[in-house]
Amino acid sequence: MASDEVEVQTSTTEDCNLRRRQKSDKDGAEHKAEEDPSVERNFEGQRVPPWREQLTARALVVSFLLSVMFSVIVMKLNLTTGIIPSLNVAAGLLGFFFVKLWTKALEHIGLLRTPFTRQENTVIQTCVVAAYGLAFSGGFGSYLFGMSAKIAAQATEQNDAQNIKDPSLGWMIGFMFVVSFLGLFSLVALRKIMIIDYKLIYPSGTATAYLINGFHTSQGEKLAKRQVWMLGKCFIGSFLWGFFQWFYTAGNDCGFTAFPTLGLKAYENSFYFDFSATYVGVGMICPYLVNVSVLLGGILSWGIMWPLIDQQKGHWYPADIPQSSFHGLNGYKVFIGIAMILGDGLYNFLKVLRRTISTFIVAARKGSNTLPITDNDTSATAFASYDDEKRTEVFLKDQIPLWVAYVGYVVIAIIAIVTLPHIFPPLKWHFILVAYVIAPVLAFCNAYGCGLTDWSLASTYGKLAIFVVGAWAGSAHGGVLAGLAACGVMMSIVSTASDLMQDFKTGYLTLASPRSMFVSQVIGTSMGCVIGPCIFWLFIKAFKDIGTSGSQYPAPYAIIYRNMAILGVDGFSSLPKHCLTLCYIFFALAIIINLIRDISGKKIARYIPIPMAMAIPFYIGTYFAIDMFVGSAILFLWETVSKPKADAFAPAVASGLICGDGIWTLPQAVLALAQVKPPICMKFLSRNMNDKVDNFISSLY
Amino acid sequence: MASDEVEVQTSTTEDCNLRRRQKSDKDGAEHKAEEDPSVERNFEGQRVPPWREQLTARALVVSFLLSVMFSVIVMKLNLTTGIIPSLNVAAGLLGFFFVKLWTKALEHIGLLRTPFTRQENTVIQTCVVAAYGLAFSGGFGSYLFGMSAKIAAQATEQNDAQNIKDPSLGWMIGFMFVVSFLGLFSLVALRKIMIIDYKLIYPSGTATAYLINGFHTSQGEKLAKRQVWMLGKCFIGSFLWGFFQWFYTAGNDCGFTAFPTLGLKAYENSFYFDFSATYVGVGMICPYLVNVSVLLGGILSWGIMWPLIDQQKGHWYPADIPQSSFHGLNGYKVFIGIAMILGDGLYNFLKVLRRTISTFIVAARKGSNTLPITDNDTSATAFASYDDEKRTEVFLKDQIPLWVAYVGYVVIAIIAIVTLPHIFPPLKWHFILVAYVIAPVLAFCNAYGCGLTDWSLASTYGKLAIFVVGAWAGSAHGGVLAGLAACGVMMSIVSTASDLMQDFKTGYLTLASPRSMFVSQVIGTSMGCVIGPCIFWLFIKAFKDIGTSGSQYPAPYAIIYRNMAILGVDGFSSLPKHCLTLCYIFFALAIIINLIRDISGKKIARYIPIPMAMAIPFYIGTYFAIDMFVGSAILFLWETVSKPKADAFAPAVASGLICGDGIWTLPQAVLALAQVKPPICMKFLSRNMNDKVDNFISSLY
Repeated sequence: MASDEVEVQTSTTEDCNLRRRQKSDKDGAEHKAEEDPSVERNFEGQRVPPWREQLTARALVVSFLLSVMFSVIVMKLNLTTGIIPSLNVAAGLLGFFFVKLWTKALEHIGLLRTPFTRQENTVIQTCVVAAYGLAFSGGFGSYLFGMSAKIAAQATEQNDAQNIKDPSLGWMIGFMFVVSFLGLFSLVALRKIMIIDYKLIYPSGTATAYLINGFHTSQGEKLAKRQVWMLGKCFIGSFLWGFFQWFYTAGNDCGFTAFPTLGLKAYENSFYFDFSATYVGVGMICPYLVNVSVLLGGILSWGIMWPLIDQQKGHWYPADIPQSSFHGLNGYKVFIGIAMILGDGLYNFLKVLRRTISTFIVAARKGSNTLPITDNDTSATAFASYDDEKRTEVFLKDQIPLWVAYVGYVVIAIIAIVTLPHIFPPLKWHFILVAYVIAPVLAFCNAYGCGLTDWSLASTYGKLAIFVVGAWAGSAHGGVLAGLAACGVMMSIVSTASDLMQDFKTGYLTLASPRSMFVSQVIGTSMGCVIGPCIFWLFIKAFKDIGTSGSQYPAPYAIIYRNMAILGVDGFSSLPKHCLTLCYIFFALAIIINLIRDISGKKIARYIPIPMAMAIPFYIGTYFAIDMFVGSAILFLWETVSKPKADAFAPAVASGLICGDGIWTLPQAVLALAQVKPPICMKFLSRNMNDKVDNFISSLY
Repeated sequence: MASDEVEVQTSTTEDCNLRRRQKSDKDGAEHKAEEDPSVERNFEGQRVPPWREQLTARALVVSFLLSVMFSVIVMKLNLTTGIIPSLNVAAGLLGFFFVKLWTKALEHIGLLRTPFTRQENTVIQTCVVAAYGLAFSGGFGSYLFGMSAKIAAQATEQNDAQNIKDPSLGWMIGFMFVVSFLGLFSLVALRKIMIIDYKLIYPSGTATAYLINGFHTSQGEKLAKRQVWMLGKCFIGSFLWGFFQWFYTAGNDCGFTAFPTLGLKAYENSFYFDFSATYVGVGMICPYLVNVSVLLGGILSWGIMWPLIDQQKGHWYPADIPQSSFHGLNGYKVFIGIAMILGDGLYNFLKVLRRTISTFIVAARKGSNTLPITDNDTSATAFASYDDEKRTEVFLKDQIPLWVAYVGYVVIAIIAIVTLPHIFPPLKWHFILVAYVIAPVLAFCNAYGCGLTDWSLASTYGKLAIFVVGAWAGSAHGGVLAGLAACGVMMSIVSTASDLMQDFKTGYLTLASPRSMFVSQVIGTSMGCVIGPCIFWLFIKAFKDIGTSGSQYPAPYAIIYRNMAILGVDGFSSLPKHCLTLCYIFFALAIIINLIRDISGKKIARYIPIPMAMAIPFYIGTYFAIDMFVGSAILFLWETVSKPKADAFAPAVASGLICGDGIWTLPQAVLALAQVKPPICMKFLSRNMNDKVDNFISSLY
């Protein structure tokens, strides 16, 4: 039963942590004498409730209410702009707020029996995230709605009956139930690897944990109070900054997110600082190596490769296709990026697999049923701080048995293979089988990349599925519908993998039981499978013009996804010239860089970039890498000026920045839903264009 | 001989200082035990050279070179945009740089005899400021050029021969020599009152002194080094911020200075934070009372009065006149503002006069020739810090005898009264006599207002002179030329009074001898009287299209000044309705508020705003008041968090902000001269306008 847990030491992040540890050892003498930066010591007096007690009825009620609320918000955004912000932090904060209100009220009339713990808080958050996440990954604004006749009528090709599936409450709920739980089970095996062994950062998850810990910190501890105070200040500052920015965003390319900080030419190539408090905070939490890798990747792709490829327009690919087409530059961006991510992901996946098997064999030979904590682990424990020890202990206590995960995965996969072809006839059973064999690797990749840089690339993997399955099925056999359905299958898994791993990181840092979190995720997913389709159903019943371009609910991504699927059925031959070759090169490159990192000593490895982190900006753009770079530059300066202060307060500052910006998304979404539009556009024009615009404006009077 | 120095204790700023002193006394115990914040103790080992040694030959050579350079820059800006930045800080810094370079070189070859002192540095700066200041106050881009036939031809009225005076090297140099020295002599009497008695801040002067002291601080003193380091950081930050802002200013109303931080409606009423590092720094140096007064004045005028008067458009004044006309809203702004300033200035002037005379009488009765240091002064000395004592001692040592000032003023006034009517026939001798009787009061007002808020309103007083003298002379007797010439007379005096008082503040804080500074100012003024006209002469000879609208050198203010003079000859009856009544009210209000301040106890007085500070934004706008408010808010927060740190470092931060921004004006001017234009316009459009502009832009493609 314990054999599921193996110790894997990778140089990737482990040496970053080691470096940090050594650094703090150096300064430790004077620093520790002064104040102990441990978080968990502040909670020493508080009992960690057993996992069943963490799942209270009140938590589930609050979770349900928040899930409905967030699902409505996400659904409406799905169908209007199609841009969905991350609401994880809001879930944590509102969960705290509601339960606290309730417990305070009960306390007041003397009826409070169980106090509100941070574990309960984490359980609420993970449940809500699991539920509302399905409103996004269910594809109601993208692939699922893209199957409908309404959207098909807007596309010019492939709108025959076999490529159409109109939404209906029954099959949608069924589909959701079948595909949504798989990610959950694939997570169980990855959980310890990502969080304990790889010590991945999961910036948002870490930030939320700091927030939750901050809320529940008891009075008394001086340093802890100062940290909470610092977090609070940055939180408010970041929130107000988001609010301030909002006023200047009337229209496209308006506001600080379109600020050409490095000039207009650089802006066109996605090199600019977009004043995002979130990614500055992420940059402060992530190790320097990750930040540098991301920036390097951005320079390599957007600074060098894409401009060079763009010069081949007309040679390598037709010059007259739209910018968003995969037949053009966009194709290179998506496929080369994915190739590199897959290379890195596969390498690490195989490494983990090899270690698991060899440790398994060793344990079997020894005849012992329980796996000993490996040597590596012991040595790590010697280094580990009080916090790490305590957290690891709790995190490893309430295991979800691995056989549950494996059996669950296989059972659900079989159900899916049987049922899905009935819902979508073109989606043959062998497509699904292959998808479910590959899915864990992709889930691993996404959870890994998200842990490094906070970006979930779920929709990118979804696009890959559209392309591959669409091409495989072919245009004659309903390839469009098959591609869109496969997209759903894939997106559910990888999206769940990254979202819920963030929550596990939060759980790790708040001593929540993995078992209570798993159960809470199961409950949340079940709720989401019903809530999501129901809200979507209400929307299409209530508003007849959904999906009509130019209306109040244009659902812009539905037609985009359908068009991708239509392109996909042409197969690999439709990819632009040399694209596949470049994909092979970058796939190999990712593996080679990883090999070099592993072979070379730790001293050298810490200067070799991480391919996974490098590949993230390939499609997204470099702006967030510059935000992160700014964050790490601030941290670096701070450490130069005062190392102890930076060590004690930097995580609080970063969490404040991330959470404040995260919470702002909630009122922002509400404003968008209420049709309140910002009053001013902060526009950036070149001098020539400005002269023309000035003439135009004066001609109006 | 010493009777020129009287002790005046006003509650205006004295109680602010007292409050500050008391505050620091409170925290003094723990703070002083830690580190002594005195500046002068760091210089204790260094000898203050006698005044003659402060005037070195190398200083004068460097001054001459810098004067020529700055005069060229100012002249070109005069003739292009008409907007002249303050270059005082640049003068101090470049003076340091050149002399340091020279002394380092000499030191290297072993020939250095006199070391470079901070007094010498101050002497250079004051000389350069005196010289290049005349390139602005000489009116080569405004009133003086406005007299020419070329500009007269562009105006529709009053372009007969008696209202025209074409520039010629001879009379220009003569005119400059006659009008420029008066301000200098009027300063001598005001010097001690403004700096020692009123303890006015003179933010730019103080900031420059911090910079100069920082440069000359010897190694060793830990706190001083940290202060210099802090100043340096803020200096660089502020400089880079100015540089960064520049990129986004292609076109009018572009960039951060046009950022509608509080919304578009507020922006139209000049309520916005314009991200000026200078005024944030000024806000940090000025007492809270000044900042609050300025903001109150802004709210009263731009927030309440101007919008209300604007509603009377069509009733109180014609609706169809241009915005800049004094017949409309602009008339209220200028005249009401000046009325309030004059009320406050006159009150304080008379108060000073009364005290001077009464002390004089007391001293005469006692039969003593030298004035005793009054009781007030002794008590103040008991409070005063080491720095204050030391500085006051040096500042009072090398007096310029008052009779020199009085005799000088009278002699020059007589010369002016005799010669000026020959240069400008319509400017009758009695106009000049009256102007020179009133001038000291206005010089006092301007030096006082500038000491409080860092704004010199020289051109506003010049406009007043245009209006009053123009109306007095009347349109039949060359009132336009008389008005423009009177503008020159008045602007020279008030501009010199504020500019050079800033330098005296710098001198006070760097222990420069007032006598060496006076001599340096005389030399600088003489240089300026020759350099300014010569450079202007070269410009008009070299570029034939100067003054032609739309050309490279439009000299925009020349025609504006001439138009003002043309309006002026219509007299007071041409002022908009109720304008004069409102002027009387605000004149009286200023006096009443001052009376209340003086009658009420110090405890109450410190909550009563200062009318002079309130009046400054009346014409200028509220934006700088908001900058200053931000500065004082930062200081307030800083003091709340850590009082000792704020006390030790806030002046350094403020000085860094002011000086960095000040130095940036130099490269900015060079860029403007080199026709290098910024590449991007950061524009702010309302949502509706943005939609139209977006349509227009997409129609271009």
